[in-house]
Amino acid sequence: MFTHDKKFSLGVKLTAIEDFKMPPRYICSFILFASICTGSARADEGMWLLNDFPAAQVEKLYGFKPSQAWLDHARLSAVRLAQGCSAGFVSGRGLVQTNHHCAEHCIEQLSTGGKNLVATGFYAKEEKDEAKCPALEVNQLIEIGDVTARVQDALAGKEGAAFAEAKRAIEAAIAAECTGGDAALRCDTVELYSGGVYNLYKYRRYQDVRLVFAPEQAIAFFGGDPDNFEFPRYDYDVSYLRVYENGKPLDTAANYFRYAAADAKPGDLTFTVGHPGSTQRLDTVAELEYDRDVSMPRSLFRLSELRGQLTEFSTKGPEEARIATGLLFGVENSLKARKGQFEALVDPAIIAAKAEAESEIREKVDADPALRADAGAAWDTIRTTLAAWRPKSNRYTFLEGRAGFNSRLFSDALALVRYPEEKAKPDAKRLPEYTDANFPILRQSLAADEPIYPELEKLTLTFSLTKLREALGPDDAFVKKVLGKKSPAELAAELIDGTKLRDAGLRRQLLEGGGPAVEASADPMIAFARLVDPDFRAIRKDYEDNTAAPLERAHTALARARFKIYGTSIYPDATFTLRISYGTVRGYMQDGKEIAPITRIAGLFERATGAPPFKLPETWIAARGSLNMDQPLNFVTDNDIIGGNSGSPVINAAGEIVGLIFDGNIQSLGGDFGFDPAVNRAVAVNAGALREGLAKVYHADRLVAELAQ
Amino acid sequence: MFTHDKKFSLGVKLTAIEDFKMPPRYICSFILFASICTGSARADEGMWLLNDFPAAQVEKLYGFKPSQAWLDHARLSAVRLAQGCSAGFVSGRGLVQTNHHCAEHCIEQLSTGGKNLVATGFYAKEEKDEAKCPALEVNQLIEIGDVTARVQDALAGKEGAAFAEAKRAIEAAIAAECTGGDAALRCDTVELYSGGVYNLYKYRRYQDVRLVFAPEQAIAFFGGDPDNFEFPRYDYDVSYLRVYENGKPLDTAANYFRYAAADAKPGDLTFTVGHPGSTQRLDTVAELEYDRDVSMPRSLFRLSELRGQLTEFSTKGPEEARIATGLLFGVENSLKARKGQFEALVDPAIIAAKAEAESEIREKVDADPALRADAGAAWDTIRTTLAAWRPKSNRYTFLEGRAGFNSRLFSDALALVRYPEEKAKPDAKRLPEYTDANFPILRQSLAADEPIYPELEKLTLTFSLTKLREALGPDDAFVKKVLGKKSPAELAAELIDGTKLRDAGLRRQLLEGGGPAVEASADPMIAFARLVDPDFRAIRKDYEDNTAAPLERAHTALARARFKIYGTSIYPDATFTLRISYGTVRGYMQDGKEIAPITRIAGLFERATGAPPFKLPETWIAARGSLNMDQPLNFVTDNDIIGGNSGSPVINAAGEIVGLIFDGNIQSLGGDFGFDPAVNRAVAVNAGALREGLAKVYHADRLVAELAQ
Repeated sequence: MFTHDKKFSLGVKLTAIEDFKMPPRYICSFILFASICTGSARADEGMWLLNDFPAAQVEKLYGFKPSQAWLDHARLSAVRLAQGCSAGFVSGRGLVQTNHHCAEHCIEQLSTGGKNLVATGFYAKEEKDEAKCPALEVNQLIEIGDVTARVQDALAGKEGAAFAEAKRAIEAAIAAECTGGDAALRCDTVELYSGGVYNLYKYRRYQDVRLVFAPEQAIAFFGGDPDNFEFPRYDYDVSYLRVYENGKPLDTAANYFRYAAADAKPGDLTFTVGHPGSTQRLDTVAELEYDRDVSMPRSLFRLSELRGQLTEFSTKGPEEARIATGLLFGVENSLKARKGQFEALVDPAIIAAKAEAESEIREKVDADPALRADAGAAWDTIRTTLAAWRPKSNRYTFLEGRAGFNSRLFSDALALVRYPEEKAKPDAKRLPEYTDANFPILRQSLAADEPIYPELEKLTLTFSLTKLREALGPDDAFVKKVLGKKSPAELAAELIDGTKLRDAGLRRQLLEGGGPAVEASADPMIAFARLVDPDFRAIRKDYEDNTAAPLERAHTALARARFKIYGTSIYPDATFTLRISYGTVRGYMQDGKEIAPITRIAGLFERATGAPPFKLPETWIAARGSLNMDQPLNFVTDNDIIGGNSGSPVINAAGEIVGLIFDGNIQSLGGDFGFDPAVNRAVAVNAGALREGLAKVYHADRLVAELAQ
Repeated sequence: MFTHDKKFSLGVKLTAIEDFKMPPRYICSFILFASICTGSARADEGMWLLNDFPAAQVEKLYGFKPSQAWLDHARLSAVRLAQGCSAGFVSGRGLVQTNHHCAEHCIEQLSTGGKNLVATGFYAKEEKDEAKCPALEVNQLIEIGDVTARVQDALAGKEGAAFAEAKRAIEAAIAAECTGGDAALRCDTVELYSGGVYNLYKYRRYQDVRLVFAPEQAIAFFGGDPDNFEFPRYDYDVSYLRVYENGKPLDTAANYFRYAAADAKPGDLTFTVGHPGSTQRLDTVAELEYDRDVSMPRSLFRLSELRGQLTEFSTKGPEEARIATGLLFGVENSLKARKGQFEALVDPAIIAAKAEAESEIREKVDADPALRADAGAAWDTIRTTLAAWRPKSNRYTFLEGRAGFNSRLFSDALALVRYPEEKAKPDAKRLPEYTDANFPILRQSLAADEPIYPELEKLTLTFSLTKLREALGPDDAFVKKVLGKKSPAELAAELIDGTKLRDAGLRRQLLEGGGPAVEASADPMIAFARLVDPDFRAIRKDYEDNTAAPLERAHTALARARFKIYGTSIYPDATFTLRISYGTVRGYMQDGKEIAPITRIAGLFERATGAPPFKLPETWIAARGSLNMDQPLNFVTDNDIIGGNSGSPVINAAGEIVGLIFDGNIQSLGGDFGFDPAVNRAVAVNAGALREGLAKVYHADRLVAELAQ
């Protein structure tokens, strides 16, 4: 699936198993990508800014020019799930359409008392049955401003720790001003073009989000891991949520996407409006090699092993299978996505093309004395900075990156320990996740009443402590401090069995009680978090001051050089902020065969077997006779998307929904590094199929009626 | 551990999870390695042939010149465990010393009726208690002959399928002549220097091998995976076996190694006599990149995931833990070894040094018209051959390489299906593992009475079928043929529950019954093997004709060029045949710290905790008061060894045992690609510690007395 693979998310389950990866940056241009794009003169490439959309170019290619009003409507109708997905309003009463897999964590959290809503699906027959998701936040982008000069001035001439501090301070100050202390607002300084541009994104933040409808996972994720990132595809990967304000459905009458009456046909113009997570399209060769040789393989080894453990854990019984579902899905999804990215990096052609593009621009920079003075050393700086970081990178990954401490209860304990400490500092000096502007999302997660499973916690904590010892060695001083004479399994059992933090009431109490309450706590997980935190902070500071800062300075210089050489009509790399891409419904060639762009409901029944993940739910088998077998079910377009775009509305020129993005094809995973219009494809559920299923399989009449308004 | 990671072994458990890897080849010279060797002018590099030992050079360096009699004695006293380890005779009555981990499979097989000899250890108080290992074969190298001209003549001018067939035929003919039909002889044509030299190795083959003594695994593998390939180290990794002939201990009075009276000291000259498995020290850059980008990562992803499954399977109960021990150990060991090799390949310095050495020799070849005509195209041939193979390599790995069919019962079924088919052909046309000369080892494995665990078989078969579907895709014709509408778990359960091949009697019956018996069998596993075999054979033939043959021709040309340019006083890459290396007891620097070359028994007790893998067995705790705490326990030398050398005797100039190789340090894993005398180290158990433990911990008086003779 195409969920955004977040690198620095806070407290979300997958964080702890994510590898350290440099933050996204760089710019991308058609010119530069021509060299690695093949097979097509028409390049529907680009994840465009809503405030800098190439409307004229779209008009030239397709005869339709989106107006500013059209773009504003798209911006206000599209929303982000702060935990890592895209979505869109689809009624005037706050109804939100996204993927099943984007709401899967909520669906799992609502499965209590012997219910397994992931397996059975969920439908609120009446509005009062809509069930509150404990930890979902919806963001609507209400304003974009420019703060480039202000940020650049604050950073001018600074290096190392001074640079990192200045950046943290200016971003906190801008956010504080922008929200004015209103917790319902969220303001992010978004760094674009590697610091060539800084924009201020002002969001309205909604934390009362309720589940309206979800199908069975067996149909949402039909084909499971084998079909994931593949096409042809037959998935009904949808869920509907509703945003509430003051206990009532949010009024979204002014901005929502209507469903189109007709299905999209091959060749139709399509737009996706969503939040691509990150791309590295203009990473330097040194960075791509670092990813290929260090970050990617280490992360894949660890994810592979965890997948094995979770797979076998799931065979222990139905309850084990149920509680492991979400995590296993996340792990398998990350694994397949990253393997696709890794395959792109070990394709000799791709790095060779990058190297060629790099020597081209280096020549140009070297030929211009001013550019050379500013950016000439940047490539070498990046290479040497990475080489210096390499021996320390495991320590970062396993400590502050949490790969050694994969436990929700540990993450909560650490946040509870850090919060009073950070709160005592001026806003501008805090770790960014603890500023007044950013803390609400972490607070929501800490305070959420949701089930936490000790057996699963023990598995992941034992696993990750074992990997910590493996990565740093049993004789490492920090490893000795953590484990003492205990085995990873003993320590994990002691901590998980001993802590009382599963109780959300206690977490809220410690959160509100602040420093004195946390200090007075005898909870073993709190004590453990306090023990390790100084080491975590030390490696984070080392990274920020001595690696992130010089890398960022070098990249900003490269960005300036690119602006000067290639001009500015280019889009920035993805940053999990709102983007719009254009394209058409379009098939592609694979292994010498033509892949048609549309699948139909009939194909779903042909592909089904009696065994998961190809087993159909009873509801679909029962409805078989009434379904329109010719109804298009899934389709592909050459819109340029990436992980994080899951849940993006696919709209036509009229701004109406024709589909719902839920995946990219396997070729699109190389999209992290460059877009190949010949084969990169976005995969969507057809809007007509969504209606067909709601009406004939689920008899969700209330929802069908609302979508028709 | 340092077990030989075999690439094409037959029916051994690990085969099915091993990745396809090009067979070992090439030559290595001091001259070429100077570029990547650092820190020392004295290079104790080299895995030398017993019939081409640089005695004069050793004399020059150390003042001792091994005579031909000394070398012959070493050759006849050292033996090979055909399943993948080294060993040595240590008494006149057929007593063999090797590692615990080399006999671990036998120790596990002997653990029946509630006994767990892996956990408890084993000691035959009297000779009659010595227990027969169901599937161990010991090989003693009795003669080395030269067949270079004969083989080269047979191959002259041949390409593709003709080359592969001619090679198979000449090797089968030579073996048949050499054994003269005597199943107690084993004759291998050993290809050295990539076909620059072919030697005929004549072994005496012993299949009645009995277990005499093994300690608890907790002390043999003290420190477990965290300490594996690390130093300082504290392991007692030994087992004693005895070779029987006609029901009586073999008379080895003429050739065995005596234990030295004194411990080896820092600086002492040491020799290891053993069977290094394979090295790739002069692979071309294209091959190293292929390993780095394709073979290694794929293998590591798969091993990591299987490790996770086995780890979790082991938590299900003590019986599950027991039956998974051996496989899990093998997987973890391969994983750590390959990760070390992978780390060497992603070290930018190593491939860069190789590239430099390669352009140096290419220049020399290009400058000489005769060399250029013969070998000038070889590097490009290798690169293009690999590029053409790359898209097919997964099919090879998962089919004939067995990564998709990881099951002992399946392997047995396939061998039973293939045997009558191959036997019907002339010896020279058979698959090599079915020739009269080679088949005895496969026959022994098929006929062995040993426990096979259905639950573990289901786990590995389900896992590997799942990976097969993942690698080739659910729409692949072969995958559809294999799975039909079943899930991997359903198919695996059906086959493992349905087959009767766990019964060794039935396997022997099918083996003796030949074609008609196998054809008449209604066993589902036999039917399944028959179903898939044509696809297995097809991809094997494709590999042999279109990949192995051109690679080998290119390498032979490169070997000729190297002989001509660098001369012939060089050693060939390792081929799991007997080699001797020289070196000294010597520490090294790691992370700026000096690592002393010797550990002592006192250190073992300091390192112990109450938790595995750092938990001492009761026997050692009980003996603590009587043990000499200053007794050296493990030590390192700069002898040049690699996987397969496990169990090698370490001898002094007097030809006496001072140690027992059981591992290499983590730096030595890069030894696959080149030897760095500054940090590559062999790790051995001290002979004095072996005696100390036998006497004071195990009170194995019979054994102590025999070793003193």
